[in-house]
Amino acid sequence: MKTADRMRFIQPFHVMALLGRARELEAAGRSIIHMEIGEPDFVTPQPVIDAGIRALAEGYTHYTPAVGLAALRARIAAFYGERYGVSVEPGRIVVTPGASAALQLVMAALVNPGDRVLMADPGYPCNRNFVYLVNGEPVGIPVTAATGYQPSLEQVEAHWSQDTAALLVASPSNPTGTLLDADTLQALHDFTSAQGGALVVDEIYHGLVYGETAATALAVSEDLFVINSFSKYFGMTGWRLGWLVAPLAMVPEIDKLAQNLFLAAPTPSQYAALRAFDPDNLEILESRRQAFRERRDYLLPALRELGFGIPVTPAGAFYLYADCSRFTDDSYTFSQRLLEEAGVAITPGTDFGIFQPERHVRFAYTTSLENLQEGVRRLHDYL
Amino acid sequence: MKTADRMRFIQPFHVMALLGRARELEAAGRSIIHMEIGEPDFVTPQPVIDAGIRALAEGYTHYTPAVGLAALRARIAAFYGERYGVSVEPGRIVVTPGASAALQLVMAALVNPGDRVLMADPGYPCNRNFVYLVNGEPVGIPVTAATGYQPSLEQVEAHWSQDTAALLVASPSNPTGTLLDADTLQALHDFTSAQGGALVVDEIYHGLVYGETAATALAVSEDLFVINSFSKYFGMTGWRLGWLVAPLAMVPEIDKLAQNLFLAAPTPSQYAALRAFDPDNLEILESRRQAFRERRDYLLPALRELGFGIPVTPAGAFYLYADCSRFTDDSYTFSQRLLEEAGVAITPGTDFGIFQPERHVRFAYTTSLENLQEGVRRLHDYL
Repeated sequence: MKTADRMRFIQPFHVMALLGRARELEAAGRSIIHMEIGEPDFVTPQPVIDAGIRALAEGYTHYTPAVGLAALRARIAAFYGERYGVSVEPGRIVVTPGASAALQLVMAALVNPGDRVLMADPGYPCNRNFVYLVNGEPVGIPVTAATGYQPSLEQVEAHWSQDTAALLVASPSNPTGTLLDADTLQALHDFTSAQGGALVVDEIYHGLVYGETAATALAVSEDLFVINSFSKYFGMTGWRLGWLVAPLAMVPEIDKLAQNLFLAAPTPSQYAALRAFDPDNLEILESRRQAFRERRDYLLPALRELGFGIPVTPAGAFYLYADCSRFTDDSYTFSQRLLEEAGVAITPGTDFGIFQPERHVRFAYTTSLENLQEGVRRLHDYL
Repeated sequence: MKTADRMRFIQPFHVMALLGRARELEAAGRSIIHMEIGEPDFVTPQPVIDAGIRALAEGYTHYTPAVGLAALRARIAAFYGERYGVSVEPGRIVVTPGASAALQLVMAALVNPGDRVLMADPGYPCNRNFVYLVNGEPVGIPVTAATGYQPSLEQVEAHWSQDTAALLVASPSNPTGTLLDADTLQALHDFTSAQGGALVVDEIYHGLVYGETAATALAVSEDLFVINSFSKYFGMTGWRLGWLVAPLAMVPEIDKLAQNLFLAAPTPSQYAALRAFDPDNLEILESRRQAFRERRDYLLPALRELGFGIPVTPAGAFYLYADCSRFTDDSYTFSQRLLEEAGVAITPGTDFGIFQPERHVRFAYTTSLENLQEGVRRLHDYL
């Protein structure tokens, strides 16, 4: 059976093979410290679980509108006022089955075959594949410590061409954890907008920042796309729920796509998420944020001490993107050996792009402080 | 902001506008009989709801593997043995966020820009849009009562061309409720396979058949794709859960896409669905099937009596596709008037294709027998 050409460009994640091998080793009795997993180790906070249970008990098992429950769209919109002081019309919120679906909706709505979409390299590995799905061309902008691992305006200008449809940025970034400030977001928006292109800002790690509140692109303009999710900050990965904030005029187009591509986000998840913004739940999330911060504050100096290069202190997410060139010029083999010989699982740079992946690895602090300490001990002994 | 060209081909469903208007009328105090909704009116059976509640209470809120829980894949595979006597390897089952995601995975894996995908017209409206998403060209095969509203081998041969990647059929069909028998499935598979193309069979209304058990394409060959869903027969629409049975060699490709496009299906839904195949739940589903059959057996002769043309008795799903040319040559305006003047909501043929849509409408019997009787009374008075 012939497969489509795009299947040659879309690669499985290397980390999946490592994770599979880690599970094998664990099944054989080995202890593995997991620092490869891009998912909070915490279970969903109890108030949200209880709300999900209530929704099921009350029989909320039918479809919702394709763009989501009106009450949830309103609640998300209100949250932007409460947390960021930004007024967002509920009509601009589209509730999606995870941020994945939101990214897909945007690419489907904007990208013609052959159109280019600019994005940071290293970056979230799925991003380029959402572009391949619709036969566009993802273009990585190599980012370094010099610009906080974020594309600068100058880089975006240099990479932009007639056939560029959009610029996709992430703040905080996966895998680097770095932010874009309000001024840069403004400059990126002004430029892309002047070029007739779209700015798409992935804010799925918003909330998980350890200094000042991250700037939301929604404060910059109403004429851009923001992707967000209940997965990371709200701790609801398995519920598959995210959202998109779109320019108001684009919502009917997005609605039309959502009706066709996924019908609606899961109903019990939507009812549960209504509870996510309540003060008692936010309090739980705040204590988890503190736990993540503590982990970062432990792991960052510990890895630097071991000889990993982390020139920019990551301000958010739960990742440390580290230069491992002192130990290896092949991050994939290095990751394999760490797993086999030290019992520590991490993600090789090869999953995040083609710019210097062989000299970088990603550590996720999605496991307890105790586990991180044990991981560092093992790394120390191994290295 | 420029939108992609495909957005011109992807149309919103006409029924959504009618549904919106119906809700307005209801808000203003009018009684509306809903015969437009493609969703069982029954809430999810209690055993499955209870299993979902238990999963949440036990904290199953993290991601599952992209292809789904191993236990659920095994359970689905076993079901094919129990119900159809067909042996299916669990490794061929990919659990998806609804059948929508399964359709999307298949199109993404098979269809290059410009490739044609053949499908029945009338047919499920989203089908063509999954093809547009990946810049393929959906090609409708006009089907009539003469072939039970299903494409015949001769038609498929006549429509096939070098650049045809796949044939997509549905049994039972939406909107016509008709089946494909095992021989025709075999013939369609043999032909598409000989041409190097793929056969994709949508079986999401399997289980909701009112005569003999429908033939599953899985009995025909291991080298084709079958789409199924927990939405219709299992009554789990809002849970967003479906599955794909793929040729074993294609599963790594599908897995790769699933990892990228949606990460995984909702976790609580997957745990809940494990309970869906238990005898007590199947018993509930059987009583619902009987209720649907009773409705069909009432509505079909009643509509014929009123003057609607339904030349082929639909064997499954919960739809009647009716020729309304005795009353109108514009099914959309006819549907609007029925709503406004008679308080009956139905779906105009225009949602299902371009072959004689103006002389057809779809009635869904997804409402109680009492409501259907009242609907028929209103139709009688109006017509």
